[in-house]
Amino acid sequence: MTTVGTLYDPDALIECVPNFSEGRNADVVRRIVSVMALEGVSLLDFSLDRDHNRSVVTIAGKPAAVQEAAICAAGMAAELIDLTGQVGVHPRIGAADVIPFVPLKNISLQQCALLARQAGEEIWRRYGVPCYFYEAAASRPDRLALEDVRRGQFEGLREAVRNQPGRRPDVGGPELHPTAGASAVGARKFLIAYNLYLDTADVAVARAVAREIREANGGLGGVKALGLLVEGQAQVSVNITDVERSGVGDVYEAVKRKAWERGAASVRGELIGLLPESAYERDSEWVRLLDQFDPEQKILERRLMHPLSWPVEADRNESQA
Amino acid sequence: MTTVGTLYDPDALIECVPNFSEGRNADVVRRIVSVMALEGVSLLDFSLDRDHNRSVVTIAGKPAAVQEAAICAAGMAAELIDLTGQVGVHPRIGAADVIPFVPLKNISLQQCALLARQAGEEIWRRYGVPCYFYEAAASRPDRLALEDVRRGQFEGLREAVRNQPGRRPDVGGPELHPTAGASAVGARKFLIAYNLYLDTADVAVARAVAREIREANGGLGGVKALGLLVEGQAQVSVNITDVERSGVGDVYEAVKRKAWERGAASVRGELIGLLPESAYERDSEWVRLLDQFDPEQKILERRLMHPLSWPVEADRNESQA
Repeated sequence: MTTVGTLYDPDALIECVPNFSEGRNADVVRRIVSVMALEGVSLLDFSLDRDHNRSVVTIAGKPAAVQEAAICAAGMAAELIDLTGQVGVHPRIGAADVIPFVPLKNISLQQCALLARQAGEEIWRRYGVPCYFYEAAASRPDRLALEDVRRGQFEGLREAVRNQPGRRPDVGGPELHPTAGASAVGARKFLIAYNLYLDTADVAVARAVAREIREANGGLGGVKALGLLVEGQAQVSVNITDVERSGVGDVYEAVKRKAWERGAASVRGELIGLLPESAYERDSEWVRLLDQFDPEQKILERRLMHPLSWPVEADRNESQA
Repeated sequence: MTTVGTLYDPDALIECVPNFSEGRNADVVRRIVSVMALEGVSLLDFSLDRDHNRSVVTIAGKPAAVQEAAICAAGMAAELIDLTGQVGVHPRIGAADVIPFVPLKNISLQQCALLARQAGEEIWRRYGVPCYFYEAAASRPDRLALEDVRRGQFEGLREAVRNQPGRRPDVGGPELHPTAGASAVGARKFLIAYNLYLDTADVAVARAVAREIREANGGLGGVKALGLLVEGQAQVSVNITDVERSGVGDVYEAVKRKAWERGAASVRGELIGLLPESAYERDSEWVRLLDQFDPEQKILERRLMHPLSWPVEADRNESQA
């Protein structure tokens, strides 16, 4: 007998950020999160958004354990969330709506794409929820972008799969799950979600700034940006998809300059989710402008050392009371 | 804590048929085979071919265990086989030359393709042997066919990767491993290799028959065929890649009829590797014409019930003598 190696580097580390279409009933979210409490998996962050009726959970750990946790969570979400009665402003196609796998250390994006594909196969096999593969896990060029996969949302996609073969799931289906819809399972690089609020209610300023800084228009490399109006305040909402090409400071400086040219200023920043230690610049202006930023909670490596406690699972068995 | 499922159906069964570029030194082959002796893996068949200087091993079992066994075997082959000194008539690019994963039960070809891709990533990561993906695991249409991947063999491919980006490995490289070359890792359906010998030394008859029965020329569905001259006898060498479309009996009858039209007869058949129970037709003419056919050894399901014993590993440590 030989010594068996482990599939993946023994120090390989991945992150998974499943999004669930429930942001109001905390008990439902807690039950979904609790099934991810597997050995080798850490809970790094979670948030419920009432308006969007959506929750976002960040877990990290060993590849196979994180993969299994994400599969189990998709199953529990399918059991507890009924999209036919779900209302919210965020576009969604499924109970476990989006499941991205992200390489953190000693593992490639390509390997994460394989994990994503296997997870999709399993979600269909175990729970009968069909899946679409996106970004690095996409099996077709027209599914690279998540927005193309989700076009029409649950209600529209449910119809589209019936008469448009090109919209059918990559695995399972062709019909969506009657109540849980479908999941978009993907692999992508680590992403920093960074929003900057301007001291104006004029959304046109935010839109113009966003247009000028985004890579698609010749702006900063690895940067996507949108101009929004959030609670009466103009906001430049940024995704940094390649921190090596553009740091958060680069984005901050660019927004500051472009806004200034239009007579506005950045007054407040916020990070959604986690920031890698390498992207953190302790005494910089952009960090000082961050709203409610606790480095111990929001810096990935520190949170990994001290993860959140898993929620206590809801009463397992009434008869044991 | 939740109950963790298993990735793949608990009854999922796959086969893997790695080919190694060593068919003369039985001790080397034994050492390679012995590292595949993992829990959940059965040894079903193995053969050494002196002329081709090649060995073919058939293992089967649980997906993750078979995958790990194949990875370990590729590592041991890379350690023991030096292609720069290897001579044989069979085309080859690597020490572990071809590693196909085959779905047997409760698992899809697509899942086997993912297993193949992961295995390739691991073979590169652990042993520095680059890999090409073929058939259902192919990442590019020009690599669907194994013959296209292996074009030029070890010596030619070693040069080609230096100046033709299109020939570079799918994972690792771009240079081949100096002594172990590269591995072609793939996924395909179960394949029956069936040869029929004709009572003539005229290879033209075998070629004409092969041409007429192969699917590519409008013959039998799922059938590939070649006409060869083997030790002075015309042979129709057949691969049945889809038993549901064409059974062995269908192939036998077609060859018999086409040969008869040319004044020849099928006198002897042989099976290379295993036959699924469903393809076995006990009292049929084609089974009676099979050379040295023992159903207990050559029928997949029966061999799975009573697999071969693993070879005893070669002395582990001289200093313990």
